[in-house]
Amino acid sequence: MTRHDPATGPSPALVADVFARDCASRAVFDDVTSKWASLALLALLDGRTRFNALRRRVDGISEKMLSQNLRTLERDGLLVRDVVDVIPARVEYELTPLGREVAGHLRALADVLESTVNR
Amino acid sequence: MTRHDPATGPSPALVADVFARDCASRAVFDDVTSKWASLALLALLDGRTRFNALRRRVDGISEKMLSQNLRTLERDGLLVRDVVDVIPARVEYELTPLGREVAGHLRALADVLESTVNR
Repeated sequence: MTRHDPATGPSPALVADVFARDCASRAVFDDVTSKWASLALLALLDGRTRFNALRRRVDGISEKMLSQNLRTLERDGLLVRDVVDVIPARVEYELTPLGREVAGHLRALADVLESTVNR
Repeated sequence: MTRHDPATGPSPALVADVFARDCASRAVFDDVTSKWASLALLALLDGRTRFNALRRRVDGISEKMLSQNLRTLERDGLLVRDVVDVIPARVEYELTPLGREVAGHLRALADVLESTVNR
């Protein structure tokens, strides 16, 4: 998407590019590739999850950081927040198809690192 | 790598897991999924690059941030720093095979985001 034929392709201003500071794709890329957000996305690959379960899974994350990151990722369209209509009400988070695609690449990246580590 | 058979697999302490705060794979995962580091890795997919060329490619990065991140990624084994023996000497950076693998997954992730963005 960053290469185009000047003669026939879209003008440079219309080509999405994560390297370009003002590009919308860069904004989401920055949100995703932030320490806690990436781990939250990975955790949600397991499926629909509640807040506290996410907090337990992502070792070291604070309630505040998790909350902020979930809000950001929801705004970016990578997950949805669902209030389940039971008593007491509970809140669950789930990846969107886009979020699942993104998390899949993070998972592949994590797999590479995990298989590299000598323990 | 995060699942194992308790009866026959390695003990939990020996299984690499990016979710575990003390795991070495988590340390590298955190380094990689940091805003500037991920873009630096992406930029290096183009091949052996000099410092200033990297700084130009990664829109918005400061000299200090780039420098710090390159040092970190080198320490993690994702890239190598090479001082080319000419006059004046010049410093070039290049991904290691591990770095190329990691950057490949970041590139796939970036491609998803770029193709999603409406401009």
